[in-house]
Amino acid sequence: MSASRRLHLNTNVTGMGRHPAGWRTLDNPKSIVDLGFFTSIARIAERGKLDAVFLSDALALRGHAHGPSQSLEPTVLLTALAGVTQHVGLIGTASTTFNDPFNLARRFASVDHLSAGRVAWNAVTTYDPQAAANFSFGEAPDKPARYARAAEFVDVVLKLWDSWEDDALVADRASGLYADPARVHAIGHRGPHFQVRGPLNLPRSPQGRPVLVQAGGSEAGVALAARDADAVFTAQTTFEGAQAFYRDIKARAAAHGRDPAHLLVLPGLYPVIGGTLAEARQRKAEMDALLERSAELAKFAGALGVEPTDLRLDEPLPYELIDSGVRSDVSGGFIRSTVLLARSENLTVRDLLDRNPGAHRMLVGTPETIADDIERWFTGRAADGFNLNADVFPSGLEDFVDQVVPLLQRKGIFRREYEGTTLREHYGLPRPPSRYADAQAGVAAAADAVS
Amino acid sequence: MSASRRLHLNTNVTGMGRHPAGWRTLDNPKSIVDLGFFTSIARIAERGKLDAVFLSDALALRGHAHGPSQSLEPTVLLTALAGVTQHVGLIGTASTTFNDPFNLARRFASVDHLSAGRVAWNAVTTYDPQAAANFSFGEAPDKPARYARAAEFVDVVLKLWDSWEDDALVADRASGLYADPARVHAIGHRGPHFQVRGPLNLPRSPQGRPVLVQAGGSEAGVALAARDADAVFTAQTTFEGAQAFYRDIKARAAAHGRDPAHLLVLPGLYPVIGGTLAEARQRKAEMDALLERSAELAKFAGALGVEPTDLRLDEPLPYELIDSGVRSDVSGGFIRSTVLLARSENLTVRDLLDRNPGAHRMLVGTPETIADDIERWFTGRAADGFNLNADVFPSGLEDFVDQVVPLLQRKGIFRREYEGTTLREHYGLPRPPSRYADAQAGVAAAADAVS
Repeated sequence: MSASRRLHLNTNVTGMGRHPAGWRTLDNPKSIVDLGFFTSIARIAERGKLDAVFLSDALALRGHAHGPSQSLEPTVLLTALAGVTQHVGLIGTASTTFNDPFNLARRFASVDHLSAGRVAWNAVTTYDPQAAANFSFGEAPDKPARYARAAEFVDVVLKLWDSWEDDALVADRASGLYADPARVHAIGHRGPHFQVRGPLNLPRSPQGRPVLVQAGGSEAGVALAARDADAVFTAQTTFEGAQAFYRDIKARAAAHGRDPAHLLVLPGLYPVIGGTLAEARQRKAEMDALLERSAELAKFAGALGVEPTDLRLDEPLPYELIDSGVRSDVSGGFIRSTVLLARSENLTVRDLLDRNPGAHRMLVGTPETIADDIERWFTGRAADGFNLNADVFPSGLEDFVDQVVPLLQRKGIFRREYEGTTLREHYGLPRPPSRYADAQAGVAAAADAVS
Repeated sequence: MSASRRLHLNTNVTGMGRHPAGWRTLDNPKSIVDLGFFTSIARIAERGKLDAVFLSDALALRGHAHGPSQSLEPTVLLTALAGVTQHVGLIGTASTTFNDPFNLARRFASVDHLSAGRVAWNAVTTYDPQAAANFSFGEAPDKPARYARAAEFVDVVLKLWDSWEDDALVADRASGLYADPARVHAIGHRGPHFQVRGPLNLPRSPQGRPVLVQAGGSEAGVALAARDADAVFTAQTTFEGAQAFYRDIKARAAAHGRDPAHLLVLPGLYPVIGGTLAEARQRKAEMDALLERSAELAKFAGALGVEPTDLRLDEPLPYELIDSGVRSDVSGGFIRSTVLLARSENLTVRDLLDRNPGAHRMLVGTPETIADDIERWFTGRAADGFNLNADVFPSGLEDFVDQVVPLLQRKGIFRREYEGTTLREHYGLPRPPSRYADAQAGVAAAADAVS
């Protein structure tokens, strides 16, 4: 471990927490559209010196009878959170399939300006036929189509973020020159999916470019991450599997001429914390008792691509029926890693439901055992850090911040204070130059010729 | 004038003020991407009890060498302003040509939640070939195509905003019912431009629906406003012309079975304020002296659809060359009303440049003459209020709030305190029921059959 290598921790906000029945333990379970609910999460994260708040997203309503789901639009909500926090990073999910690159580039750059450089875009391709039905698609685009569009979409967004050089905004009252046309560049993108002249209509943002996160576990997703992303979110259930993923994607980044340290690998983690193991188990059991088993079974079956009647509680998964290649987003990663775990540990459907399938690797334990596990994965290069999934907000996050973070700080792997101001600085990432800046003109021309 | 009829005033934010050289008088002319600049505007508006801050928008960069233009994305910026204000309404412009209805409906509803009911969407169709070039359009869509899409786009957005009934979010911890499926409705929209299943993925917003503003002056724009809008923004240069527009659109609203009082007519107004007329003229002259005449001439020629060499400073406009039907958004309205004014007063190009063409009706005067003019238009039913265009922020708005607003209050036509909390309440508009609510099921079914 190099002296400068540091653990990174985000709190992943999805619904009101990862446990499907967690909301039934809350005093104000309607607060899914209240700024106060999210402000509380962001401030706890900041108190714990976490790198970022990460908002999941969905573009269709499902399961709303049984619990809260992602509602407020992420860039809007992150802007509100920027106003009530000072340090914590702000990561928003947005789909490359159901957005337009000019609007998306502008929106994230706008949040970067208004947050003084704390924003990241988590690019997903959105496997969800119900989302497609909200966006005038006759049928949902298949994976190759989604990833071909995604790769070009990301390319356009990165060019737009580079289209103003850092010092292009002159605002010289004496001469009347506001922005220097020589330092504001049309991007002239012409590809199969997008033709975008540019430039973007706002000056370069504080981070140069918002941080780019990629969250797909498929080959196409990993390839995209290795080339362009600053961080990759991934579902990993075993230490060895995570190490292999880590080695592979870092090698791919290096093959693109990148410093592998500048592509962070951040698996999901779902800690359930108690003062003793028994207390942790009790916390989980109390929420589990509130679960609607039939709804959970139906949701799990849907994610596996089978019918609920294909699943029997005390038998293994019907592996022959499972189309393991269906999904390619992180949810798909959940499922693949769940199936992997089920095979390797010979688990029943009931065992799997107990672990809230569709969530991330679950650790039920004390602050000490959870901190030790995090350290092991971090030092063993299975992860550069984690997306933490609280079982329910705010208490799940609060327990982590108050009880686990101090142990990680004592181990010397996690910051005691924020050392920078931007999310790039929290993540140890350099601020990228504009590809169009003078010194790089040759490189930019070459890059344009390729695209 | 009915006892309850009240004047409505928005501050229209475009660039750093309406005067093209105003930024050259500012201490910090780079602040176009700083929240502080906009916070100051919003707080002054709130101090003056104005109805709303209204953000113009553009989707391509133009004229940036000569001055600031709209940069930060409006829904993001309005969210930030919601956090630093308590009362003032928040109006954002967004294009029906270069957005998707599901994303747009969700974004504005999200801001409505986070601002406790203060948001409005100003729907525009965006005549701008340079915007089209940023959105993968082979060529800019023509006006009929834009308005056909706009009418259906607005229809989809209004349905999505209605898709959750007010009381659909139950969050009953005991039964485990989170949202009541009987009160959350698919919209099943199938039209020529959009096929959207719905429902929206967030609960009904505080205003029921965000306020809907329409800003096109063409026949198609007026027809859309009369049917669906809560307010119409318009460019009017003459009292009689404004009265005729007012009568016409109120009659059209009535023909749709609407209460004409619930469609506000808000022309633009560009006041330049001085303690005396000479001081007001001096204020304008100082800014005019900083204008780049050649850039202004080029901009004006572009807006007229002619070449700069077609314009001669001391001659009338080349009416035979002017394609007066080209533009249909408010900018087009500016141009049409400017051409009308030029003809009726036999103005030269120089005269027109002195009035900052492309802006709204300019009033250079004292607080008294400006307040009297506002009262005349209001009581004469040429307007229900105005979009105020400050020459430069913040001083142009500050002068209006400190010097003109007290006179309007004394005349008894403008509020002394906010009487409600939402923008609908400021505007005197009722909170609409969901078309899908039980009592209205028959109406909703009929409406769906039509669309």
